[in-house]
Amino acid sequence: MTGFTRDDLIHKARLAKASSVTLRRYREEDRQRAILSIRDALAANQQDILVANARDVAAARENELSAAMIDRLTLTEARLRGLGEALKEIAASPSVLGQIEHEHTRADGLLVQKKRIALGVIGVIFESRPNVLIDCAALAIKSGNAILLKGGSDAEHSNAILGHLVQDAIASFLPRDAVQIIPGGDRQMTVEMVKLVGLLDLVIPRGGEGLIRMIHEHAKVPVIAHAKGLCHLYLHADADFDKARAIALNAKVQRPSVCNAMETLLIHQQLDDGYVLDLLQALEEAGVRLRVDERVWGLGPKPGWEQAVDEDWDTEYLDKILSVRVVASEDEAIDHILKHGSHHTEAIISNDPSVIQKFEDAIDASCIAVNASTRFNDGGELGLGAEIGISTTKLHAYGPMGAKELTTTRFVVQGTGHCRV
Amino acid sequence: MTGFTRDDLIHKARLAKASSVTLRRYREEDRQRAILSIRDALAANQQDILVANARDVAAARENELSAAMIDRLTLTEARLRGLGEALKEIAASPSVLGQIEHEHTRADGLLVQKKRIALGVIGVIFESRPNVLIDCAALAIKSGNAILLKGGSDAEHSNAILGHLVQDAIASFLPRDAVQIIPGGDRQMTVEMVKLVGLLDLVIPRGGEGLIRMIHEHAKVPVIAHAKGLCHLYLHADADFDKARAIALNAKVQRPSVCNAMETLLIHQQLDDGYVLDLLQALEEAGVRLRVDERVWGLGPKPGWEQAVDEDWDTEYLDKILSVRVVASEDEAIDHILKHGSHHTEAIISNDPSVIQKFEDAIDASCIAVNASTRFNDGGELGLGAEIGISTTKLHAYGPMGAKELTTTRFVVQGTGHCRV
Repeated sequence: MTGFTRDDLIHKARLAKASSVTLRRYREEDRQRAILSIRDALAANQQDILVANARDVAAARENELSAAMIDRLTLTEARLRGLGEALKEIAASPSVLGQIEHEHTRADGLLVQKKRIALGVIGVIFESRPNVLIDCAALAIKSGNAILLKGGSDAEHSNAILGHLVQDAIASFLPRDAVQIIPGGDRQMTVEMVKLVGLLDLVIPRGGEGLIRMIHEHAKVPVIAHAKGLCHLYLHADADFDKARAIALNAKVQRPSVCNAMETLLIHQQLDDGYVLDLLQALEEAGVRLRVDERVWGLGPKPGWEQAVDEDWDTEYLDKILSVRVVASEDEAIDHILKHGSHHTEAIISNDPSVIQKFEDAIDASCIAVNASTRFNDGGELGLGAEIGISTTKLHAYGPMGAKELTTTRFVVQGTGHCRV
Repeated sequence: MTGFTRDDLIHKARLAKASSVTLRRYREEDRQRAILSIRDALAANQQDILVANARDVAAARENELSAAMIDRLTLTEARLRGLGEALKEIAASPSVLGQIEHEHTRADGLLVQKKRIALGVIGVIFESRPNVLIDCAALAIKSGNAILLKGGSDAEHSNAILGHLVQDAIASFLPRDAVQIIPGGDRQMTVEMVKLVGLLDLVIPRGGEGLIRMIHEHAKVPVIAHAKGLCHLYLHADADFDKARAIALNAKVQRPSVCNAMETLLIHQQLDDGYVLDLLQALEEAGVRLRVDERVWGLGPKPGWEQAVDEDWDTEYLDKILSVRVVASEDEAIDHILKHGSHHTEAIISNDPSVIQKFEDAIDASCIAVNASTRFNDGGELGLGAEIGISTTKLHAYGPMGAKELTTTRFVVQGTGHCRV
């Protein structure tokens, strides 16, 4: 155990809160320099970071973590270079602070402005991947927020060295206290953290369903999270064969372990049987195991197919497994998604504008992909630079959250002695 | 008791949820017609509304409610006309739905759009004033949302007739189920309502601190509320005497019972004693009772003054009572506001741009008023049309919330077979 107590947590949160007020006085140039200075620190301390990370990886092997978990935990020279590039992009991206989002002068001369400001103090609770610490710290700095970062115990040594590097790196340009590292490994401390009303303005959990559920149960501060990504691809009756195949493969196979990968394929019954079998074979050849409904089963069954059971339609496999269902109409596809979708990403392949519009109107998801892969629902792909998370709830932000989503707007009115009539 | 059960509540919430999907297919014209039709219904049924309201007012008198409460409860011909005018304005205001907030085409030809959509189903829990029902129903309709409206038992008869009128009025243009009335008088039903995860996308409580606290304690769905409005006016050393006096009087006296009225006056010690005494006298002549700190006391004391105690600085009087403190510097004023403010509205009178900027940077409030009255922090005054509430938390909305604040944005990407590389 770390010996880190609730009092330590509150102390760190208070330091962050105090620095969040000071942060408002700094300029974009200071924030840019601080972010670039983290980049320099990563480059200058690469060896030490890799050594610390190797200790975490060795412990993970001893604890028999899965290969996927160990992969997520592992830092390499290439991954650190990638982080450095992301930091450069975040620093160079347009400022999200101080803009006047709206302005008008009333007939009586009162100037009404709506100005963009930082939220204050953000808490991020993350599992496994230590690079999340760097991304989130940089986005918080970019948006003028202080941040509390609580990683998982698996990445204890990696997070400790990265945390110190970030704090030292920013200290020449911004208050060092703006970034606070909370040790991992203590779930009770997560519970205490999400109760810090008045100290944290927002908590963003990044992790599995268990973590999210626990946080929703205890949180007294605002939380933005995505519970899961159960994404569908619907092939309409008029779907172009080649496009549909390419997109289905991309959505399922390119990176099966992420939240914007496809988990269920819905196929209109009018699509040619031979084509459907060809598509399913292509998926199997790419290593995908199929769980099919009765109508698909009727087309084969082929060796390797399994019959889907009820739970399959609600399962986020995060693996090379796909449930496949034939639907009688776009309405049946929409109903299926409304029942089983997770408000993350839903895709349609069709050339019929009225069907596409109907799908868009009916489906409640943070991203609708039309004749495109579900994999595009990502802050980097959609032009936000890095992302601090993907929200599957509609309040404040819906979809990928970049620096701008860590800000809010408020009114400033300026008069010359104006009174209300 | 009403005999209204938790099952009834869930049934109504499900009807609202189902209609929120249907609502996406309607046009702005339908929404406008529905809102104007409520206006017509109020005019055509004025007598019945006033009779129902008179029953509530009579019961309130019997129950010995305060004069202020009875005033808030009472509907008059003039108030109904005012409501009709507000409905006309809401109907005529620009559409908040369907706008493309952002659009770019990637180098690979993928079109990325961020589109504005309704939140889904809103719950509003309100006390006393029955006209809130009409304002909120109209704003929900304008923004394409379904709404559950739960008023207080004091306005039982008024809310019942208004609810039916609204449902009947919109039924020719929109799904009748989009507006659901939940009977008041049962606090447990409020608790159940804020737990309807998956059915309600947002709950907005409008009421006293007790209601807000109870809702925050039990809520499982997102809540936007303002706990209280403890607004300060700070007179800097260079404050113009006449402007300061006019604004102080306006902020305190024009409508003392509302959340954007001033509760504490902070005065820089360099301001002329004679002027300060003159200002305090003007406030007293307007019926304001003063609770003053030691330094003000030293200027008098005058008959009628009371010495402020610690609780005064944290008290939202909502009445003609004012606490007054002399501060040694703008820093002391800022520290006082950071400690006692409620993130609602904070005002400064000064002509020094650097002091004004320092105040704006340091103060965390939904509206900063510079040389203007606190009373301007109001949706109508700031150009939103009607408001559904004022948020004193920063997530999603900070300050007055109009129809636009009942919407969110999401990504729609359109490709021609685009896959992620």
